[in-house]
Amino acid sequence: METFFTFLEKRIADCSSLLCVGLDPHVSDLPAPSAEGALRFCLHLVKRTAPYAAAFKPNAAFFEQFGAPGWEALRQVIEAVGEQSRRQGSLIPVILDAKRGDIASTAEAYARSAFQALGAHAITLSPYLGRDSVEPFLVDPEKGVFLLCKTSNPGARDLQDLLLGEAGEPLYIAVARLARLWNTRNNLGLVVGATQPEAMTAVRAAAPELWILAPGVGAQGGDLEAALRAGLRADGKGLLLPMSRSISRAADPGKAAAEMRDQIISIQYQMKG
Amino acid sequence: METFFTFLEKRIADCSSLLCVGLDPHVSDLPAPSAEGALRFCLHLVKRTAPYAAAFKPNAAFFEQFGAPGWEALRQVIEAVGEQSRRQGSLIPVILDAKRGDIASTAEAYARSAFQALGAHAITLSPYLGRDSVEPFLVDPEKGVFLLCKTSNPGARDLQDLLLGEAGEPLYIAVARLARLWNTRNNLGLVVGATQPEAMTAVRAAAPELWILAPGVGAQGGDLEAALRAGLRADGKGLLLPMSRSISRAADPGKAAAEMRDQIISIQYQMKG
Repeated sequence: METFFTFLEKRIADCSSLLCVGLDPHVSDLPAPSAEGALRFCLHLVKRTAPYAAAFKPNAAFFEQFGAPGWEALRQVIEAVGEQSRRQGSLIPVILDAKRGDIASTAEAYARSAFQALGAHAITLSPYLGRDSVEPFLVDPEKGVFLLCKTSNPGARDLQDLLLGEAGEPLYIAVARLARLWNTRNNLGLVVGATQPEAMTAVRAAAPELWILAPGVGAQGGDLEAALRAGLRADGKGLLLPMSRSISRAADPGKAAAEMRDQIISIQYQMKG
Repeated sequence: METFFTFLEKRIADCSSLLCVGLDPHVSDLPAPSAEGALRFCLHLVKRTAPYAAAFKPNAAFFEQFGAPGWEALRQVIEAVGEQSRRQGSLIPVILDAKRGDIASTAEAYARSAFQALGAHAITLSPYLGRDSVEPFLVDPEKGVFLLCKTSNPGARDLQDLLLGEAGEPLYIAVARLARLWNTRNNLGLVVGATQPEAMTAVRAAAPELWILAPGVGAQGGDLEAALRAGLRADGKGLLLPMSRSISRAADPGKAAAEMRDQIISIQYQMKG
């Protein structure tokens, strides 16, 4: 059966890359703070980095801040990725970084928004409202979800690191276990920050087969080799590395993306040897 | 100092109501599933119920599902509430039910989206990413946040009810305690479903002074009197009751809202006696 992750694995094979290019038009990065500016910024990034991108990850916040025109720019950015996919003859998945989470009928409306109105292939979600808030996004196996598990910000300690019950297991490990249970169609993965390899190792042990989206390498200071060693599955797959500013702020984003892809390949090669 | 909750308390005094009218244009409630249909549905509701509404609560999902035109409709709905406020000479706060939650610079973009681009006065947020994901929404004391604490859906048990440490306190009580710590400007409250009065009582005990937004009375089957007894503060304030379908699906939404207001007043009167 074709699922979101079989699409993603095919794309990774086609471009030999685990790099996910973040499309985050921060106001400070735009010549003019407008939806038009955000659109130009992202179209340039998509065009230059598409050959080296396993996936693209636009963050909804940076488009929403410009109101309705921003929302339209987001749709056009996703459409532009579709055009690159057709040119390359290889589907490049778009992961909408939206961190949504609401109850059943509202979750259905968010799923329509992400997958139909915008045309994204996957979405990031918060786990706080539990299974019925995630399920409407999983119904179509060709669409995927990355569930927030352990994030790389200081506030991760407030809830995610709290210890449960007598065993003293942190909440984020409970989330990883729940995600395994909920992943009945091979289209649910986890978000685990790359800045703490020990946490990544613990999540990988708790969920050996799940895909992990691991932000934090590059601008946030995460160590690439440590992330790969801690996060890759036994089959050498299962890890996607989103990078935003380290690519978008480079003089030549295409060159920066190509170099990052090659650096990942080189570490993977060493790990096999 | 004027804060979101001093505005809300003034409005509640002006209209003698704890009712928060939900603006949820479900596709099944619209003659035609479009942004235009959602706008008409909401403008009608706002116009008919404004005299009895302590606040309005549009849910972002039901607008986002229509793409950019939906987002523009949401902005116009919030603008229409502003017009009703001017007519009545009493500010009716708009709580954007968006359940967002992202890290620092992204949270700032979401705050700009809600408070500036859309013009809402408060927003609902998820607590999973911790304090630094909430703080950017609290900087301006005139803008408010309701943090998800204990929701009324079945999935609430998956994370929110998990027991922490040796004391065995549920996660949602830890969230209530964190919210007290984070509420340094009198603009942070909690979302607690009205369907479980025992949980509401426990949250009220853990956070005696915080405002609670308590969905679930009406269509979701929560008992109004039980919710009021469990959720009101010692001063008889501190509880806001959102209702959506029980108002919007009534033959006359204005009459339904007026009756609900009066029913709440009557129970409050009995409680005092």
